[in-house]
Amino acid sequence: MNKRKIINDPVYGFISISSDLLYDLVDHPYFQRLRRIKQLGLADIVYPGALHTRFHHALGAMHLMSQALKALQEKGHMIWEPELEAAQAAILLHDLGHGPFSHVLESVLLTGVAHESITLVMMKDLNRQMNGRLDIAIQMFEGTYPRRFFHQMISSQLDMDRMDYLNRDSFYTGVIEGSIGADRLIKMLDISKDQLVVEEKGLLSIENFLHARRLMYWQVYLHKTLLSAQAMLTQILHRARELSVAGEKLFATPDFARFLQNEYSLSDFDTQPDLLRAFNGLDDNDVWASVKGWKSHPDPVLSTLCEMLLNRNLFKISFYSAPPGEEILAPLRNRLLDNGIAENQLSYFMVTGETTNWAYAKEQDPIRVKMKNGNLLDIADASDIPTIEALTKIVRKYYVCWGKNVSLRG
Amino acid sequence: MNKRKIINDPVYGFISISSDLLYDLVDHPYFQRLRRIKQLGLADIVYPGALHTRFHHALGAMHLMSQALKALQEKGHMIWEPELEAAQAAILLHDLGHGPFSHVLESVLLTGVAHESITLVMMKDLNRQMNGRLDIAIQMFEGTYPRRFFHQMISSQLDMDRMDYLNRDSFYTGVIEGSIGADRLIKMLDISKDQLVVEEKGLLSIENFLHARRLMYWQVYLHKTLLSAQAMLTQILHRARELSVAGEKLFATPDFARFLQNEYSLSDFDTQPDLLRAFNGLDDNDVWASVKGWKSHPDPVLSTLCEMLLNRNLFKISFYSAPPGEEILAPLRNRLLDNGIAENQLSYFMVTGETTNWAYAKEQDPIRVKMKNGNLLDIADASDIPTIEALTKIVRKYYVCWGKNVSLRG
Amino acid sequence: MNKRKIINDPVYGFISISSDLLYDLVDHPYFQRLRRIKQLGLADIVYPGALHTRFHHALGAMHLMSQALKALQEKGHMIWEPELEAAQAAILLHDLGHGPFSHVLESVLLTGVAHESITLVMMKDLNRQMNGRLDIAIQMFEGTYPRRFFHQMISSQLDMDRMDYLNRDSFYTGVIEGSIGADRLIKMLDISKDQLVVEEKGLLSIENFLHARRLMYWQVYLHKTLLSAQAMLTQILHRARELSVAGEKLFATPDFARFLQNEYSLSDFDTQPDLLRAFNGLDDNDVWASVKGWKSHPDPVLSTLCEMLLNRNLFKISFYSAPPGEEILAPLRNRLLDNGIAENQLSYFMVTGETTNWAYAKEQDPIRVKMKNGNLLDIADASDIPTIEALTKIVRKYYVCWGKNVSLRG
Amino acid sequence: MNKRKIINDPVYGFISISSDLLYDLVDHPYFQRLRRIKQLGLADIVYPGALHTRFHHALGAMHLMSQALKALQEKGHMIWEPELEAAQAAILLHDLGHGPFSHVLESVLLTGVAHESITLVMMKDLNRQMNGRLDIAIQMFEGTYPRRFFHQMISSQLDMDRMDYLNRDSFYTGVIEGSIGADRLIKMLDISKDQLVVEEKGLLSIENFLHARRLMYWQVYLHKTLLSAQAMLTQILHRARELSVAGEKLFATPDFARFLQNEYSLSDFDTQPDLLRAFNGLDDNDVWASVKGWKSHPDPVLSTLCEMLLNRNLFKISFYSAPPGEEILAPLRNRLLDNGIAENQLSYFMVTGETTNWAYAKEQDPIRVKMKNGNLLDIADASDIPTIEALTKIVRKYYVCWGKNVSLRG
Repeated sequence: MNKRKIINDPVYGFISISSDLLYDLVDHPYFQRLRRIKQLGLADIVYPGALHTRFHHALGAMHLMSQALKALQEKGHMIWEPELEAAQAAILLHDLGHGPFSHVLESVLLTGVAHESITLVMMKDLNRQMNGRLDIAIQMFEGTYPRRFFHQMISSQLDMDRMDYLNRDSFYTGVIEGSIGADRLIKMLDISKDQLVVEEKGLLSIENFLHARRLMYWQVYLHKTLLSAQAMLTQILHRARELSVAGEKLFATPDFARFLQNEYSLSDFDTQPDLLRAFNGLDDNDVWASVKGWKSHPDPVLSTLCEMLLNRNLFKISFYSAPPGEEILAPLRNRLLDNGIAENQLSYFMVTGETTNWAYAKEQDPIRVKMKNGNLLDIADASDIPTIEALTKIVRKYYVCWGKNVSLRG
Repeated sequence: MNKRKIINDPVYGFISISSDLLYDLVDHPYFQRLRRIKQLGLADIVYPGALHTRFHHALGAMHLMSQALKALQEKGHMIWEPELEAAQAAILLHDLGHGPFSHVLESVLLTGVAHESITLVMMKDLNRQMNGRLDIAIQMFEGTYPRRFFHQMISSQLDMDRMDYLNRDSFYTGVIEGSIGADRLIKMLDISKDQLVVEEKGLLSIENFLHARRLMYWQVYLHKTLLSAQAMLTQILHRARELSVAGEKLFATPDFARFLQNEYSLSDFDTQPDLLRAFNGLDDNDVWASVKGWKSHPDPVLSTLCEMLLNRNLFKISFYSAPPGEEILAPLRNRLLDNGIAENQLSYFMVTGETTNWAYAKEQDPIRVKMKNGNLLDIADASDIPTIEALTKIVRKYYVCWGKNVSLRG
Repeated sequence: MNKRKIINDPVYGFISISSDLLYDLVDHPYFQRLRRIKQLGLADIVYPGALHTRFHHALGAMHLMSQALKALQEKGHMIWEPELEAAQAAILLHDLGHGPFSHVLESVLLTGVAHESITLVMMKDLNRQMNGRLDIAIQMFEGTYPRRFFHQMISSQLDMDRMDYLNRDSFYTGVIEGSIGADRLIKMLDISKDQLVVEEKGLLSIENFLHARRLMYWQVYLHKTLLSAQAMLTQILHRARELSVAGEKLFATPDFARFLQNEYSLSDFDTQPDLLRAFNGLDDNDVWASVKGWKSHPDPVLSTLCEMLLNRNLFKISFYSAPPGEEILAPLRNRLLDNGIAENQLSYFMVTGETTNWAYAKEQDPIRVKMKNGNLLDIADASDIPTIEALTKIVRKYYVCWGKNVSLRG
Repeated sequence: MNKRKIINDPVYGFISISSDLLYDLVDHPYFQRLRRIKQLGLADIVYPGALHTRFHHALGAMHLMSQALKALQEKGHMIWEPELEAAQAAILLHDLGHGPFSHVLESVLLTGVAHESITLVMMKDLNRQMNGRLDIAIQMFEGTYPRRFFHQMISSQLDMDRMDYLNRDSFYTGVIEGSIGADRLIKMLDISKDQLVVEEKGLLSIENFLHARRLMYWQVYLHKTLLSAQAMLTQILHRARELSVAGEKLFATPDFARFLQNEYSLSDFDTQPDLLRAFNGLDDNDVWASVKGWKSHPDPVLSTLCEMLLNRNLFKISFYSAPPGEEILAPLRNRLLDNGIAENQLSYFMVTGETTNWAYAKEQDPIRVKMKNGNLLDIADASDIPTIEALTKIVRKYYVCWGKNVSLRG
């Protein structure tokens, strides 16, 4: 049976699954689960088209990896068939460990367990099931494979992951200014001393890439309304866990209930053999179904927050350049009290936070540019105007969000 | 407060909400629910990008309505501001009555209740809440408004509903051959004797529209793999209802449980005041959460089917030009029996069906072409080659789908 | 020196020139000339974006050829490196023999010399210059290469030439309904018994391709206004030749003057060694520069027609289903006479013609579909509805165009 | 007769001509001439798709103007019908005064006559022909119309001219990173105290706009290969004029010959009534036809340069950060002498130049941002990171181009 397959993709036209191993990975329940986890979590509350999944993103990143490696081959670099397959496998699986609404969930239910760690647990489990066929892929993912550029294409400031997600998020949100020209970027890649580099003539493309990334952060990933919705879901989960731990029986799928009731650390995945299976049972539907079930729960805090989120009656949110002081917070708090919120419920309806962003981090593994004279320069040094320098600046914003129109149920 | 708003849409760029009424409708929980109902149900199993919702489709159809009415105004037709708003409101709300996985659900849980009827119940309920602000919109929707073309733009063989869904489905599936050129179609519309007509120079565009529609049917809406997945979900719901009615307690959100346990008719929506509220509680998450919950249910039929669907281990499906006879069915049945399926379980793992399609129905309200000499012709008569005639032919296909690799759980 | 090169293309993103031979061909003056010949001649008079050249089209067809051959390789067909290069070379050069405003010019100046014949003369000349490096390409072009499918990909009803020009013409005119989904078409190609075939699952895509082709013919290639402009340019050239032959000195580049003054046949290209060089000197600029020069020529017919064409004051044109009789022509003729046109000038200001089109010609080398059972069927027999049948029907239209508002100069 | 018309545009879909006046302007020979002048001159030598004309650009800018004014109307600003038409007329005509290969020609043949001045001469001439129907448009163009924002939309750092040309040039070159998101930009425009401003929430879009502009400059407008081709055409015209002035008879259309043989200043357009008519006779074809005619001229410098340009055998070009000194120039000069170029011919085959660019000029009329608190800030002050500051920096590059492989003819 020929397992090669072509998948339609509005972003790239078609994505080819080019080997039996890749087909088997896509077909595996671990990977099929990603069909039910949206890449951008709650972002469709702002951008209604942003419903694309981690499944599609992972396929897209695999596609870019295959395109990029072919471009490198055409420049004369030797890349063996098993390397080609392993690099695609590694990028395909790089997001396996994400739970639903990843950043929200990780801040409440799986605190202290990085999704990358779970990814690795799952990749190793898959490797066992597949008798070692993922050995090289895992080395590339972990960064232990000798040819360094493979890891850089999987995880760096210019990896196929970022290229696909910026491309795809820009496409599905409709924020077309965020488009990065992945086609051209890929044709500008090269290898020098086993490092991933960019040809000098790709300098403008990289600047555009970083600029687009910055734009996407402020326009999409850190959009005020999205931060507000995330804050609400976070408070819902805090309350649910609080009630759960206090013995309250909450509506939830069995797998989700388990994570609501227990606090797990990474090592539990080793000692509790079925924990990985349970984790693999989680997706967006578990969270939404619970939110829907909880909207009629007797606890007024829980039911009010759920009803609000479902009907897009969101917290009001304001940004500040410094942490907001009592002169800002006190009046909000009073308004909530006036609305009938009790002292001990206040924290569920008023949340402060901060958010930071920079488009390019000089201190990390840099983006290297290969100048025409053969020298390798950090992109920040290669550019002829201070734009890149500007993009390395960290921008930090503080916010308060609160339920301006809360009316407690029950 | 200014309620005008602009919404990003990858398909059209931007969609404007151009009045307070429209804003209030979009903001209403009835409409927000559509955020959680995918336009194409299970189709993302074949086309992973096809995750767009009825929410986005309804906004898109409203956008096309506004564009089309403006084009008609520019051609000198008088259209009053309240008509402009009402037509947009009507098309915005036209799909309110859809449940999740509409065709599947309606075949099991709400048999005999057309979604259009529920839409009308909900529109009337909204009209009450809004003190009659939807009077004209409802007339247009029902076809009682005197100027006939408004209804035709909401519901006919050339309505804004079809234009948006073909456009949008083509876009998100990536089946670009299905693109209909909505821009040009809209510019070709005209009004003659209060009927919606197409200018003669738009003939080729209409042919292309019908051709694209046919292509989308076979390539997307009636795709074999999708029919197979739908058959599986149908069998899951049949089994769940059977168990429910037999008194078994099944995991479900409260609203979904209600529909699983009871059989409702349209009149129940009048007599049970909270039934509409419960219906409005249903969305895709309820169904998926139950499928996830049921995958560990003790009933082997239910759990097996759920596990299969979740992991995309689908029924095999074959098409036939005539209803398949025993020479085809018997061997399949025997194979299932060999695999350990009991006689009384067979019907859950082997399903026959038929599917029909035609791109243009002559007997319905026709698409009228205004010839240069002023005559109105049915498109099928106006075209100079028999293509359109060909597109009126009903194509009927029969299928069998069955669980080739079923291995019953438990 | 590395001659590989990447060329930007708004249609496909990037086009790669993948070998030294291909680079040398692109670089050759014969091919660079195509930069100055628009693919659609006068069509920008209707579609102002339709300015793309035969140069870009030839590169695009080469790109599709490379994509298609790679897709066939991935399906397991052996295609040797020299074949890959030769097929690309052949399609790259397939339009070398086109003059400017090909159909117009061939009807007046090079009557009886098919552009394909000149292409072959030029390919053979190039082959001499390149010491036989085009041997295989020429065999493929002529159809004498043993593996038949190469020729079919260069010239048949489903060749890379058509795919690119439909795609490209649709893109640059903005007639997006003419888009053919070349990506998918290419992935549906296969080889069976050395013939080019389409997989059965590509049936809908082929139907769409033929439908798009028909639409492009009526919407673009045979657009009324374009036919009218072509008729005017034809009459301009007729008059210019008449004057030239009568010894009048007309403004023209030396190469163009030679073709205006002499009537050549194909054999002259053999006997007059510099004729090919002169032909290669012709491009759109020669024609336009002359039209501009002639607008102040003392001959009132010539100058009037040139002025009219330059200022887009075009003949009026009407279509008829039968050849127009005297009851139609006589009044037009009288109107022209009333406007001061002399009897012997009439033919320059009133032109009749006919135009025919069919989307698919059954009697030619058919498009073959490989059914799932392995049978090869003509597409017209494989389709389940009579659409294709309909598309084989020849549509014939008759037209008259005439200078409604002519006012003779001088 | 209804003169309203819809024109296909691959960039925006459709462009509407919305009034009789606008139709008459488009139809006028002055405007039709722009069909034959490419927007980007020689740029198709690098980007083969870049063949779009000033005609299409002017229509596109008119389209954006109409979209922008409608968006302003929707925000509650009163804009009268005659203003709407005048602003569209003004932007439609803003490039009338461009000759073919504008920057090249102006540096040789019309030195000291800015194309804006000729535009104004032509607008005033049109206004006379049209009995004053362009009065307001001319005021807006000149900046004397009281409502200042109209002029800013026609000519400023955020005018519809730039928006369209960046958009269009990005589209036709295929440099998609240069896309500016004109749709969103337009929705962010507002008016404050009769000045054109941008809403604060459009800040990121403006940054993206400036960034895209910078990218387009270096990637397209100042592309090395394009600068080289322009240098060659410049030298060709210098030589042709030199020979012309020396009494040599050169092949040229009558209108082009006139400009080759005479040196005109702006005032000549007043005193020589037919000079404007002659200017209006010039387009790209005159230049190319002459280059083609001159390739067989006896002067070896002229014929060699023409042959080289036609066959894309271009000067080699190098960039420097400082003006190149003798250590760079002398060896090149010697190489040319070795190749048989005479001393007095050297200047035709070796050219130095400089090129500067900045994305945003602070000292000019700034782009104003309307902050949420109502304040107007210069974009460079409103942005939270120093990107914009960086974009104001002038970048200056020096180049030498020379005929590395020149072999003199004859």
